[in-house]
Amino acid sequence: MSNNTKLDLHPPAIKFHEPQIEMAHGAGGKASRRLVEGLFAPLLFGSSREPLNDAAHVSIDGTRMGITTDSFVVKPLVFPGGSIGELAVNGTVNDLAVSGARPEFMVVTFVLEAGLPTATLKDQIEAMANAAQKAGIKIVGGDTKVVEHGQADSMYITTTGVGSLLPGIELDPRSVRSGDAILLSGPIGDHGITILLARGELDFESDLRSDTRSIFPLVEAIARVASSTVPSGARPGIGSDLRPDLRPAILWMRDPTRGGVATSLNELARDCGLGIVLHEDTIPVHDGVRGACELLGLDPLHIANEGQFLAVVVPELADAALHALQNTPGGEHARIIGEVREEPAGAVLVTTSYGGTRIIDMLVGDPLPRIC
Amino acid sequence: MSNNTKLDLHPPAIKFHEPQIEMAHGAGGKASRRLVEGLFAPLLFGSSREPLNDAAHVSIDGTRMGITTDSFVVKPLVFPGGSIGELAVNGTVNDLAVSGARPEFMVVTFVLEAGLPTATLKDQIEAMANAAQKAGIKIVGGDTKVVEHGQADSMYITTTGVGSLLPGIELDPRSVRSGDAILLSGPIGDHGITILLARGELDFESDLRSDTRSIFPLVEAIARVASSTVPSGARPGIGSDLRPDLRPAILWMRDPTRGGVATSLNELARDCGLGIVLHEDTIPVHDGVRGACELLGLDPLHIANEGQFLAVVVPELADAALHALQNTPGGEHARIIGEVREEPAGAVLVTTSYGGTRIIDMLVGDPLPRIC
Repeated sequence: MSNNTKLDLHPPAIKFHEPQIEMAHGAGGKASRRLVEGLFAPLLFGSSREPLNDAAHVSIDGTRMGITTDSFVVKPLVFPGGSIGELAVNGTVNDLAVSGARPEFMVVTFVLEAGLPTATLKDQIEAMANAAQKAGIKIVGGDTKVVEHGQADSMYITTTGVGSLLPGIELDPRSVRSGDAILLSGPIGDHGITILLARGELDFESDLRSDTRSIFPLVEAIARVASSTVPSGARPGIGSDLRPDLRPAILWMRDPTRGGVATSLNELARDCGLGIVLHEDTIPVHDGVRGACELLGLDPLHIANEGQFLAVVVPELADAALHALQNTPGGEHARIIGEVREEPAGAVLVTTSYGGTRIIDMLVGDPLPRIC
Repeated sequence: MSNNTKLDLHPPAIKFHEPQIEMAHGAGGKASRRLVEGLFAPLLFGSSREPLNDAAHVSIDGTRMGITTDSFVVKPLVFPGGSIGELAVNGTVNDLAVSGARPEFMVVTFVLEAGLPTATLKDQIEAMANAAQKAGIKIVGGDTKVVEHGQADSMYITTTGVGSLLPGIELDPRSVRSGDAILLSGPIGDHGITILLARGELDFESDLRSDTRSIFPLVEAIARVASSTVPSGARPGIGSDLRPDLRPAILWMRDPTRGGVATSLNELARDCGLGIVLHEDTIPVHDGVRGACELLGLDPLHIANEGQFLAVVVPELADAALHALQNTPGGEHARIIGEVREEPAGAVLVTTSYGGTRIIDMLVGDPLPRIC
């Protein structure tokens, strides 16, 4: 993203005119996008036309790297399958991974509520240390602030990760073409529905667990297959200078957290100007997620995930990438869930096995606040 | 800092046994140090014996760099001379600077309170953009979360900065020797007392302003003089391989924020095992700070600063470094405020012009909460 300069004769256009901040502005859907694109981006990042990514790629002394940051305010702190500490590590690890970077270093800050039991804090520090060790990222520094009792709901955690770039990965939604395949790493909606049930807001029994984990091994698996095979019509990941006229084999990746798969794919559709067509019966959804969504009138495609990712690859790589995912621990349930088409341009269309279709938009509003 | 490995046979020693978190654990003084050294460091950073620094130095693909992170929870959001947005940029810029790194990139997260007026948020985003432009650091990415009304006191901001290392700077308190000089960049206590007065908690009139600013130009000035002069008995900053038997010319730097000059210098005294002797009448203090401290029974040496720094240099560099500071805009009031001696080992001694002396400890408790 470019930076403002003093000579900029076109002051950035502020398009965000809502009078105040609402919960939906933090939900990762349409309202979040209006806030980020209409207020943060023009003022902080200049009038860049670059798509907004989960991680930025920057250079220090000529070395390129990925950097990403996230604050975590999930409620409750601990839930089946995970906790705020694990999310804070894995969420940042995964943002690096889907930007094509190997997670290397992390710094962390805590905003703690006065009166917080030390045992509660210790549990979360240990959860972070374990998650970082599993994900192969080093925690190298941090900061702690304490606010008055009644503020900050026990704790908020912010993590920032830095990673080295995987060779040959050049992700850009503007390189996506009609015919490209859409891969999904596993079942959707587990995290969001687990949090909802952990709050006791729904009278519904389930053994669902959050899917929080590092997805880097899965990303690395498809990056490896992209560099070792040379699909006709696409460049391999490594040695891409051999055929600069061809496209990279992996074109786009995203971890569909807040706003779910539907929001991530709507952003892709908008950024590439093409249509995303999903085959509903190929999308893995646990029964518990499906049942809770039916009760709530929500679509699993709008529910947050923490340990899944989407990838768009050239058609020639689709089968090899799928096999690479399925042969990596944790990728057994990966599927090809759809493809890119010319139409409906800028939108996401879901087709069902009965021949029906529907357009699915980004998440609107915030049905499940404080999910991460 | 080293990382735990699975083979570590000596599990880290947790020495923090206080039952709950109090405001003082976020105040940057003794309680903060107990929490960080007794709980965070052993669990997150392994059983490292490295001194804990404001910024960590790490490598990506062989390139070394500095990284630092801080959360900002200052109350009120806006105060004479600055605001939370400016602090969030300058605080991180300054942590990079005193680690010997040139600020290059920054990422930022916001935790916003639902109901926050957009105009209030816009003011702070603009303050950040202006501060970043002034400091020469690029904001390249971020994240936003929203929490319920009544939480997060309008907003908390977390920034993480990455910087390239200034050539030849090798800071290590363990290199400090008796006879080294202690430099201070300017008047102390302005920030802390400004915040206190802005809250209306003290019936006291003053035209004090926060000293928030980037100190990188001042750090760069002494780094330049350290590399261009070759004091006998010390290595220059650049080309230090010429005399590896000699010490670097700049040995230690720190921005004395929470806990003030006294806390930073007590940490130095502990880390180098020597005595720090200050000459009180050389320490610049504005009348407003002195007056407020007398009313409150506080010592200006314990009050937070945001735009000042301390440096320890070899005696041969002291005058040249002082002149370099005084000839850089914003460094006019820099002073040599004391020196390192063998005694009192591990402590800070203040001498007055009347011949009196007193030992000054780290900040204990939290007389001024939520200062940054």
